[in-house]
Amino acid sequence: MAGSRLKMFAHSMLQPDDVVAARERIRSLVRKTPVLRSDTLDDLTGSALFFKCEHLQHTGSFKARGASHAVALLPADCPGVATHSSGNHGAALAWAASQRGLRAEIVVPEGAVSAKVENIRRFDGQVHFCPATQTGREAALAELLAATGLVAIPPYDDDRIIAGQASAALELLEQVSTLDILLAPVGGGGLLAGTALAAQYWAASLRVMGIEPAGADDTIRSLAAGRRVSDHHPATVADGLRALVGKRNLEIIAAHVDQVLAVTESGIVAALELIRRELRQRVEPSAAVALAGILAHPDVFRGRRVGVILSGGNLDTESF
Amino acid sequence: MAGSRLKMFAHSMLQPDDVVAARERIRSLVRKTPVLRSDTLDDLTGSALFFKCEHLQHTGSFKARGASHAVALLPADCPGVATHSSGNHGAALAWAASQRGLRAEIVVPEGAVSAKVENIRRFDGQVHFCPATQTGREAALAELLAATGLVAIPPYDDDRIIAGQASAALELLEQVSTLDILLAPVGGGGLLAGTALAAQYWAASLRVMGIEPAGADDTIRSLAAGRRVSDHHPATVADGLRALVGKRNLEIIAAHVDQVLAVTESGIVAALELIRRELRQRVEPSAAVALAGILAHPDVFRGRRVGVILSGGNLDTESF
Repeated sequence: MAGSRLKMFAHSMLQPDDVVAARERIRSLVRKTPVLRSDTLDDLTGSALFFKCEHLQHTGSFKARGASHAVALLPADCPGVATHSSGNHGAALAWAASQRGLRAEIVVPEGAVSAKVENIRRFDGQVHFCPATQTGREAALAELLAATGLVAIPPYDDDRIIAGQASAALELLEQVSTLDILLAPVGGGGLLAGTALAAQYWAASLRVMGIEPAGADDTIRSLAAGRRVSDHHPATVADGLRALVGKRNLEIIAAHVDQVLAVTESGIVAALELIRRELRQRVEPSAAVALAGILAHPDVFRGRRVGVILSGGNLDTESF
Repeated sequence: MAGSRLKMFAHSMLQPDDVVAARERIRSLVRKTPVLRSDTLDDLTGSALFFKCEHLQHTGSFKARGASHAVALLPADCPGVATHSSGNHGAALAWAASQRGLRAEIVVPEGAVSAKVENIRRFDGQVHFCPATQTGREAALAELLAATGLVAIPPYDDDRIIAGQASAALELLEQVSTLDILLAPVGGGGLLAGTALAAQYWAASLRVMGIEPAGADDTIRSLAAGRRVSDHHPATVADGLRALVGKRNLEIIAAHVDQVLAVTESGIVAALELIRRELRQRVEPSAAVALAGILAHPDVFRGRRVGVILSGGNLDTESF
């Protein structure tokens, strides 16, 4: 495990038991998404692939899991929530807040995928545009929080969020109990960290791997460097994976994830097309990254039973 | 029930027990397809809708169920199979035959949806084009059977086929046990007849309804006339529902289906778009007919828990 080489952080880490508690907390709030298969993709890869359809989750991504978990833990007198998000977390938080009758305000970087912005508004989230930089996002959110007294719910570097995202893998393991490997894409690392904790809880022998666009390989570089890198200039079609991996997320990934592999942009596009044709599913580029990883590294997966989390389905209609 | 008014046929009818036996026979051959939901469609219709995703079945339609059942019942020394089909049954039969190592030859009317023709070839079915009339289809198949000695497997007017198609509804009832109404589109009537028998087996109180394009309303007219009509000039975008309802099929529908309702072409197109947007699924027009029926007849379905069979997903990419 990467974790045997890297012990970078000292604060208390989220534990496998925590993700099971989170799953029970949100069981009635989120959808149990289906698992799809394809003979053609199995033949093509020499593996048995099980695709967990989180693009069919409420709001169209796994982010509904973490958001509903964080919101479920808020006190009854909470005035509402806020976050910054390029899209899926924003829509998920707006949805989760509306389910509790709470207001949600979302800081969105200019240039975000328009379908994702519409998705935030669809669930009654109020959108505030800001400059498309990390500094711009944080400044706009800080201003909003100061003006409103709303509670910030971060998109990934948050134990409540990570524990909630883990429920996708826990569900998949109940649906298909005999997997050898679990695969998740890595952006901020909420899904991968949660998946790794879920796998730990399920069976220590279960391998968990992350897949990252080569154009946004901050997690791979951080694991190699033994510290979270700060030079990060993402260039990838997978708009959901452009964030710098979070601190808590990287800690869990270092401890419990076997390996993170990189894929090319053309590999992502090819995987997206295979998912459209063979699974008949329309997912966003970020969701195709894991299959791209299997296709790019066939020897790692051949003969294995692999769970693949299709993370989301929100993309502009025109770009499909 | 329509059956209380109409007892048109005298020969022995397929029974509810038969469909349970068929389901066991093909359990390991077909996919257990997922059931999808949409809060938006529930709100829009005032119903609780459960969409059975047969477009995610092997070969992209429920036809794989009937075809694999018919093929499973063939003797070991069978030389192969043949049929005429505008597409989905042809691909399903080619697939089912190839699973048993048998050859399949499919007579296809000129002008059939090209994705469906490609789908036949994909599963190693040999395609023979013929004139696009019932006479042309039957003559070409008769010639093929005489020349080859292959066994004909009809697309719908066949007890083995009807019993196989019923497994979609049996599965759905296991997945969602508390339905009030089951809905299926009607073309040749294999799916609707099978669904009606499955519902009879499950609970006599469960209502089954068929939905038919107004431009191909031979089943509605046949039930009203008390005999199978022969004047049939289908004009509908739902290419899978253009067949004249089969004799066996009409008999079962008359006995066990509560009602068959008609929908307009614009209603079908609107339902197709809702399925694309709200379920994120790409289905063929025939599969959207049932939802079109719910939207066109809201009073019938309001407050009910309705199972909707999405029958198939094979359409030309361009027409999507």
